[in-house]
Amino acid sequence: MVYKNLKDEAIELHYKHKGKLEITGKMEINTEDDLSLVYTPGVADVCKQIADDPNKINTLTSRGNMVGIVTDGTAVLGLGNIGPKAAMPVMEGKALLFKKFANIDGFPICLDTTDVDEIVNIVKAMGPTFAGINLEDIAAPRCFEIEKRLKEELDIPVFHDDQHGTAIVVLAALTNALKVVNKQNRPIKIVINGAGAAGIAIAKLLYHAGLTNITLVSLEGVVAKGEDWLNPMQVEMAEVTNKDNVRGTLKDAITEADVFIGVSGPGALKKEHIQTMAKDPIIFALANPIPEIYPEEALEAGAAVVATGRSDYPNQVNNLLAFPGIFRGAIDAGARDITTEMKVAAAYGIADVLSDEEISKDKVIPNALDERAGERVAQAVMSSAIQQKKETSSVS
Amino acid sequence: MVYKNLKDEAIELHYKHKGKLEITGKMEINTEDDLSLVYTPGVADVCKQIADDPNKINTLTSRGNMVGIVTDGTAVLGLGNIGPKAAMPVMEGKALLFKKFANIDGFPICLDTTDVDEIVNIVKAMGPTFAGINLEDIAAPRCFEIEKRLKEELDIPVFHDDQHGTAIVVLAALTNALKVVNKQNRPIKIVINGAGAAGIAIAKLLYHAGLTNITLVSLEGVVAKGEDWLNPMQVEMAEVTNKDNVRGTLKDAITEADVFIGVSGPGALKKEHIQTMAKDPIIFALANPIPEIYPEEALEAGAAVVATGRSDYPNQVNNLLAFPGIFRGAIDAGARDITTEMKVAAAYGIADVLSDEEISKDKVIPNALDERAGERVAQAVMSSAIQQKKETSSVS
Repeated sequence: MVYKNLKDEAIELHYKHKGKLEITGKMEINTEDDLSLVYTPGVADVCKQIADDPNKINTLTSRGNMVGIVTDGTAVLGLGNIGPKAAMPVMEGKALLFKKFANIDGFPICLDTTDVDEIVNIVKAMGPTFAGINLEDIAAPRCFEIEKRLKEELDIPVFHDDQHGTAIVVLAALTNALKVVNKQNRPIKIVINGAGAAGIAIAKLLYHAGLTNITLVSLEGVVAKGEDWLNPMQVEMAEVTNKDNVRGTLKDAITEADVFIGVSGPGALKKEHIQTMAKDPIIFALANPIPEIYPEEALEAGAAVVATGRSDYPNQVNNLLAFPGIFRGAIDAGARDITTEMKVAAAYGIADVLSDEEISKDKVIPNALDERAGERVAQAVMSSAIQQKKETSSVS
Repeated sequence: MVYKNLKDEAIELHYKHKGKLEITGKMEINTEDDLSLVYTPGVADVCKQIADDPNKINTLTSRGNMVGIVTDGTAVLGLGNIGPKAAMPVMEGKALLFKKFANIDGFPICLDTTDVDEIVNIVKAMGPTFAGINLEDIAAPRCFEIEKRLKEELDIPVFHDDQHGTAIVVLAALTNALKVVNKQNRPIKIVINGAGAAGIAIAKLLYHAGLTNITLVSLEGVVAKGEDWLNPMQVEMAEVTNKDNVRGTLKDAITEADVFIGVSGPGALKKEHIQTMAKDPIIFALANPIPEIYPEEALEAGAAVVATGRSDYPNQVNNLLAFPGIFRGAIDAGARDITTEMKVAAAYGIADVLSDEEISKDKVIPNALDERAGERVAQAVMSSAIQQKKETSSVS
């Protein structure tokens, strides 16, 4: 597909179908008898079952497979704060992907408010409606607080995909990329360019997975203890990252780094930067649609593995590999939360979709449409959730 | 179907399918090209179209055909306040009926709050998600305020079905019943037993349709000016109803009445009551599942036409005849509200489904599953909405 025609074609497709989603019934209503079963009077007995045991809502209604895709439209794709109405096409797309890759029913909730308390209260009140909440395209730093509070206050999994979905797929791709350059069993130095929601989520997940030598770089400079421009999340990160206490800019941080992960903006990485990195540098240039550096240039500068967010280059880092299977696994395990352990398990699940024979510099991650990923991730997440339940119950 | 087996069968059916609804895609995602169109990068252009002109959300997303079915679970069927989770099977049933009878996508939102302000704020915030709001099974008197405030503050149709749906179908059935007894062109006296949400909505709609001699009776007695037990809605109704200023009980109100409409409870109407009514009394005994009086008894006592809420007797007053077509018509007309005029038009639309030849004492209203109703109602409501728009614009 030629990108310049994509616009017209996408608009035409959405217009033709009037959007992408439909609410359909799992059963027919053709006779009075049908009506008596799915509606009054028969439905009353179904209601009573749930009134007596609220958990039965998950086996007697669609709620057990229903995930709310919640946004306020403040950080939509590369478009920024375009508002809740304009965000709807993305949320509908997400619902389509939930269905296709994990047989989950996703429903978009686009909220006409950006107030943290209000969003938290609304989503909390919708607890009886959904078995899980996928927060989407909510701007930092509000997204942190909204997710944190909802995780505390709801007894269903809550997951901000822009943070954790990206982090999981990055860890998956990095796991295989390190195999390609044969660095999987030694300490490596990682620079993350971009210290917003995604960058911090990536740093946290990599750290938890044992990749602890990380330096974050924001537009203001290297995240280092004591810098006066740090926001609270960055202050927290400065405590555990940047071991050498580097100050300055990306140029200062990237020397001798094994891995560059960009979640920043177009053209942020230069060939000269790559030339100062350690042998066989791994470049993840994830800004979309225009990456921090184009793959051709990165390879010319000596990169051993390059990944981007684009589908027209090898190694696309696409959240689609993660979120459907994560919710499938969490829901099927009856998990009340999506923990860091489950996220790491998801990442290894994605990485493991590719056999060692399949892995190469142009294939460190499965294709976004690889249907093996959803199932593999779901299994990995479910196992992790069940393991954690066991540990919790053996401790208590 | 034998009613006593219905319980097991209904539970089994709901369990087998794990509820009744599914979110499905209107298009396939099989290739990278498909993905580029329904999701990134193509979707960004669709988002931008809506960002530039928010009205396009209704042609480029499913929102234009999406109705939220909102409840707090406080007045579910005959079950009362069973909570939002236990209400879900009814809301899902409603969504199924929206789809079947008006091709509307209905999505259930069961809210874990009974606070009026909170419910209003939540539903308001969901404005970008829905093209209409069907309030359902919310207890009086909170339902009045919630509906009133949402009608004022949202620019999409808001409709509390328990009030207005019932009122519309009652007016439809009454219109044809008056033909059966040949009283269609003369003043008639109506007694409504039950002065809660449904009773008051019925009284208001009949009044608006020119049937102005109405007396409301509550459990406390006849609604009359100055009674100290009246709630604010009843005080308002006392001003326009009960012309003869009757006081006392149902027995006092019903003498010489042409029509009894019961939205009260089992056995509230006695044969002796009917015997004091005018010639050819019309009895709508709508309490469900046990009516105010069983049809056999009412007929024995001299009733000319009997309607109930049950599907196993002739003349079932079922909201299903109204709500799908009402939303279809309102949405298709681009109406910002469902006005009283539109409700009256809907009622006559339902009544008109039956030709004069079809109308009889056992057929004053179409069968609940009569597919002609949805379309007829939609057309009537749309015409009324468009007419009102014209009037408004010619006045302004």
